[in-house]
Amino acid sequence: MRELRRLSALTLLTTFPLAQSLALAQSAAPKPPAGYTRATADANAAFEKVLLDTPTPENARRWLFQLTEEPHVAGTPAEKKVADWVNAKFKEFGLETEMVKYDVFLNHPKSVSLKMVEPKVEELSLMEDNIPQDKDSTSRGQFPAFHGYGASGKANGQIVYVNYGSPADHERLKSMGISVEGKIALVKYGGAFRGLKVKEAQDHGAVGVLIYSDPADDGYMRGDIYPDGPMRPPSSLQRGSVQFLSLQPGDPSTPGGLPSTAGAKRIGRDQMTNVPKIPSLPISYREAEKLLRNLGGPRVPNDWQGGLPFSYHVGPGGAAVEMDVQMDEGLKPIYDVIAKIPGTSDQVVLVGNHRDAWTPGAVDPNSGTAAMLEAARALGAAVKAGWKPRRTILLCSWDAEEYGLVGSTEWAEDNAAMLSSKAVAYFNMDVAVTGPNFGSGGTPSLRDAVREAIHMVPEPRKGGMVGPVWEQRSRAAWAAAAPVNLDAKDPAFELQLGRLGSGSDYTAFIDHLGVPSTDGGFGGDYGVYHSVYDNFYWMSHFGDPEFIYHQAAARYLGLIAFRTATADVAPLRFSNYGAAMKEDLDEIRTDVARRARTAGANAFAPDFSALLKAVSDLDAAGRAADAATDALLAKGDAAAFAKMSDALNQVERAFLNKDGLPGRPWFKHQLIGPGLTTGYAPWPLPALREAVEKKDKAMFDTEAKRVVAALDAGTAKLKEATAIR
Amino acid sequence: MRELRRLSALTLLTTFPLAQSLALAQSAAPKPPAGYTRATADANAAFEKVLLDTPTPENARRWLFQLTEEPHVAGTPAEKKVADWVNAKFKEFGLETEMVKYDVFLNHPKSVSLKMVEPKVEELSLMEDNIPQDKDSTSRGQFPAFHGYGASGKANGQIVYVNYGSPADHERLKSMGISVEGKIALVKYGGAFRGLKVKEAQDHGAVGVLIYSDPADDGYMRGDIYPDGPMRPPSSLQRGSVQFLSLQPGDPSTPGGLPSTAGAKRIGRDQMTNVPKIPSLPISYREAEKLLRNLGGPRVPNDWQGGLPFSYHVGPGGAAVEMDVQMDEGLKPIYDVIAKIPGTSDQVVLVGNHRDAWTPGAVDPNSGTAAMLEAARALGAAVKAGWKPRRTILLCSWDAEEYGLVGSTEWAEDNAAMLSSKAVAYFNMDVAVTGPNFGSGGTPSLRDAVREAIHMVPEPRKGGMVGPVWEQRSRAAWAAAAPVNLDAKDPAFELQLGRLGSGSDYTAFIDHLGVPSTDGGFGGDYGVYHSVYDNFYWMSHFGDPEFIYHQAAARYLGLIAFRTATADVAPLRFSNYGAAMKEDLDEIRTDVARRARTAGANAFAPDFSALLKAVSDLDAAGRAADAATDALLAKGDAAAFAKMSDALNQVERAFLNKDGLPGRPWFKHQLIGPGLTTGYAPWPLPALREAVEKKDKAMFDTEAKRVVAALDAGTAKLKEATAIR
Repeated sequence: MRELRRLSALTLLTTFPLAQSLALAQSAAPKPPAGYTRATADANAAFEKVLLDTPTPENARRWLFQLTEEPHVAGTPAEKKVADWVNAKFKEFGLETEMVKYDVFLNHPKSVSLKMVEPKVEELSLMEDNIPQDKDSTSRGQFPAFHGYGASGKANGQIVYVNYGSPADHERLKSMGISVEGKIALVKYGGAFRGLKVKEAQDHGAVGVLIYSDPADDGYMRGDIYPDGPMRPPSSLQRGSVQFLSLQPGDPSTPGGLPSTAGAKRIGRDQMTNVPKIPSLPISYREAEKLLRNLGGPRVPNDWQGGLPFSYHVGPGGAAVEMDVQMDEGLKPIYDVIAKIPGTSDQVVLVGNHRDAWTPGAVDPNSGTAAMLEAARALGAAVKAGWKPRRTILLCSWDAEEYGLVGSTEWAEDNAAMLSSKAVAYFNMDVAVTGPNFGSGGTPSLRDAVREAIHMVPEPRKGGMVGPVWEQRSRAAWAAAAPVNLDAKDPAFELQLGRLGSGSDYTAFIDHLGVPSTDGGFGGDYGVYHSVYDNFYWMSHFGDPEFIYHQAAARYLGLIAFRTATADVAPLRFSNYGAAMKEDLDEIRTDVARRARTAGANAFAPDFSALLKAVSDLDAAGRAADAATDALLAKGDAAAFAKMSDALNQVERAFLNKDGLPGRPWFKHQLIGPGLTTGYAPWPLPALREAVEKKDKAMFDTEAKRVVAALDAGTAKLKEATAIR
Repeated sequence: MRELRRLSALTLLTTFPLAQSLALAQSAAPKPPAGYTRATADANAAFEKVLLDTPTPENARRWLFQLTEEPHVAGTPAEKKVADWVNAKFKEFGLETEMVKYDVFLNHPKSVSLKMVEPKVEELSLMEDNIPQDKDSTSRGQFPAFHGYGASGKANGQIVYVNYGSPADHERLKSMGISVEGKIALVKYGGAFRGLKVKEAQDHGAVGVLIYSDPADDGYMRGDIYPDGPMRPPSSLQRGSVQFLSLQPGDPSTPGGLPSTAGAKRIGRDQMTNVPKIPSLPISYREAEKLLRNLGGPRVPNDWQGGLPFSYHVGPGGAAVEMDVQMDEGLKPIYDVIAKIPGTSDQVVLVGNHRDAWTPGAVDPNSGTAAMLEAARALGAAVKAGWKPRRTILLCSWDAEEYGLVGSTEWAEDNAAMLSSKAVAYFNMDVAVTGPNFGSGGTPSLRDAVREAIHMVPEPRKGGMVGPVWEQRSRAAWAAAAPVNLDAKDPAFELQLGRLGSGSDYTAFIDHLGVPSTDGGFGGDYGVYHSVYDNFYWMSHFGDPEFIYHQAAARYLGLIAFRTATADVAPLRFSNYGAAMKEDLDEIRTDVARRARTAGANAFAPDFSALLKAVSDLDAAGRAADAATDALLAKGDAAAFAKMSDALNQVERAFLNKDGLPGRPWFKHQLIGPGLTTGYAPWPLPALREAVEKKDKAMFDTEAKRVVAALDAGTAKLKEATAIR
């Protein structure tokens, strides 16, 4: 899985002149990459050429074809087969490998049925249409519609439509005098992670939940539909996990940060607090229309209207269903495949992608797997050519991500001590390609590494490099959206990585362990998410018919891993960290100011001064640390490099708090986390954001102290690094 | 007609506590109304009660029923019949009346046809469906689809879809390598005035234009469709004028500000520059779908997608039509009915509403006519009770507004000298009611008059007065939208009237003559604009079934006319004029700053300092003038009241420039006007806005000088008024 919203933002058009960005790229070229001495840069130029020259479109195409031969859901023999194949590929490329097995709680559907009983009796389809020219759409080996971690059960009831099913949507429904209590909630995909839609419905007393894909969100209103185009056709439905992802990911039978190792203490399904108790199913818009069109009750608020050709009503009345969901659930084996390129120091650089898919999964996740395999082949070629990395590289093919980041979370928990002290960075690539537009989220300290690597990757269609195209698109988005301050000089554009929310395997690394992380890829129009049409035919007709963006993704991933592993000093850069935190804090300050306009005397008026000071201190310390690193590198004092690397590597860990975020102790990071009510989308400064949403002044004050302490701890670590001589 | 966009903004919800607004209203109550001495306020309290007590829902209902018995298009016998009836009503209410006839250029359809020839041959309907329960939908006396001032002609060609048909849309089309040249442009209603859509298509070489109502804009995506709800059903189409309204309104045969009086010099159709040369027709979404669904060519940009259930394409290819439009055009008689209540001074207060309609016109315009008639009846009752206004009131029932504000424009041109020296204010009420939400646009100097009057009108459903409900909705919109400045105290909310664009009869008064004007009414969901379903059945089922908002509109209109006519000093207030101009200037400054972000070295960087100073001077002078007026009123020096009234009455005229706006000399006002490319929507500081859009620095500098001169002239007039003792 992966944050869906980000993908559409990547399709943004731009008007920023290309020439300026190219100039910027050229002017940056003479400098060695972050963390490199000139000598190391020169010595490794030939290996970098291997990294860029080795990946080919043909191989990426071949890997993707093999990976997507059949649906490979976690815990099934088909997925084990793919794990073995990936393992064999890594070996073929000359890498050491290890297959790490965990037994984790999973579910597969035994039998599912959904029957409309009002306005008439009709069995509703839980399968997608076969499309003659696409052999993978024939659903060979495909489970019928179900939700990962969905509850078994029967539910009968009237339908109530609740828009995206967010807390605010249920509030709005309440203001209309209507509730889902005792009813079947019908909600749209989009916005929050689907598990949180089920959680809200359950918390409001619904007996069952149907989640459908509205054509306004990823169907015909967004583009031509499959097989004429890349968007979702009428019969298509979105599978996926309904874990309560923002509370805790990973195996629900081993909560609290414990790995699912042999002999681990387990809890039963009844004790699990992050999976639903009521049954839910995904359905298509063709089936949803049969219910929605007949709903009585009041007209929806205008912003709840979707793309079906009639005026939506909330119900109840007019439509009712019987659902029967029976799951085969229990402990099942999953397999993480870990390939290794040993380094000369004890620091570690990780690259990761999941392998399990709800369907053939050509986009999600095997475009990423294909790119990672080509990157692995290129790294193997560099090793054969004589390269020896300073830091050990681990290439991780995760299992059971789709159920709740299970493979990566259990492995990260299993290796927490090593990762906490030694992991410099985790580079995730879940979806490598849905189109031509590069984008990346990530920890601010990795911005320069991302920027430098992507500036080396040729743009296969437009000419030049991918970096400047990405930067101009980012700049155009900033130009259109960032507030204008008329009473001062307009602020300069500062490229930032998007903040990481959740929905992919970076979560345990950044949020639980404080390992700087990124997640990136090439985006475009993609409407078949988690459907049977996410397959090789789709990719080879719409996403990347020539596999040239797969090649670009492999070049980028190989190069950033190579550089991070090779640099004299760990390439973590902090000059822009303060600016990123200032953006996040200002977003909260703006939210507070806007709420105060309507709250009158009851305005929530927290004191931001200590936070602003802490951010300002971090900003200064970050700049000083970068200057100190540059001075060390210029001086060429190799003995100090290791000390500096270790020091810089502890900065992100300083932002963690052992007690975690309010009510979700697994999430340790105080500056970033998935939104409590969004799952996919990030909440920067999550505890402060939560306090503002709850209008809880006492909570804000308590949490602000913890955030200031975290920022100050980071500042202190930066000062320690700056002092290294 | 009337600016359609504003109506939907009025449906805005709000969260600002009602109690605060009520407190504000109550604290304001002890002060006499603007321009009143305490003695005059006390002496007229009983008459104000008459104004509020007289209008009834029953009468409003009766008047509306009679006014909408049949379609009454300007220049037809049906419309003459309604004019005579309104004239008789005014007389019945005890008012002097005059029927002013002008012969003006109009057109009516002789024969119209539209045939699809690709993908198959099929005659497309140009009539709306009959609805059994609605006798007015039977199209008795109804013309088939046509456009006012549309050209006669035949056109054959392939369809090209151009979104809303704006200049930017044609640019976007060009970037896709496609043009409407030699083609039939198919565009959606919405955004700009429809005549400007035809102008853009014509300027880009189209041979014909079809304009359809997309269900995303006023059909099922916005609510339940007629007759189940207030929104547009599939067969419905929007009639209307295709004059190039932003260039010049009024009779196209007498351009240049000349009235269409007997013996006026006329030009022929070929010489008219503000009417189309290519044929155009309005069509329904049911008919448009037959063309759109089959269009080839590239997929539209995402924001061009409408609400029909398929992915839109731009063409060409796949759909073609033959259109044949034959018009009966020439000079036809129109009738303005002017009722009069003579005052004791030579100043004049005007109230106006048009009477002609494309269809029965229950909303547009006859809800306004019904309200004005009830206000007239109330004013007549006050006269009978002994009231004698200080200023003469003229109640104006305009004809041929729908073709291009023709009746009001010719009358205003005919009476320009009198209006320029004596008219204090023009209160327009085109659409009185489509729902419960009051809103008003207007000149900043009339904000206090509007606010005070609407604070006296009971809210018929929620209790309390309409004023506070309106203010809290305005405040909520401001709270959500106004930029937050984090580095300073958040600015306080300042209630402002919406700026006036065009599309109704205030245009000649404010834009050509500088008479302070407003346009207001009660808004709600309204999807049957300019269709045969804009009729009594619609109003009595959706818009205002109890006619209680008609009563509220009549109370408001009668009261504001009464007070403006009765005040000791003309109730023009200038304390907020500078703030309004600052808002407008800041909007342009923000636009410039945003454009500069992407323009790099070519940034358009005009100097705003002289403009900012002129606005600041106007602000100070406005506050001083209000203080001086209040001092005069407190002193009770009646001799000075007339001098002060005359002085204040010349301030708005100072903002005019005899040469008008660039390329459209009829529009004299330098601070406000309809957007050159929008028609309906206002462009504050229109010449500056045009220069920014054209990136023309020289034009900006020239126009800035003229704007500064206009602002300074207003400031000088305010200083003259301030000096009156």
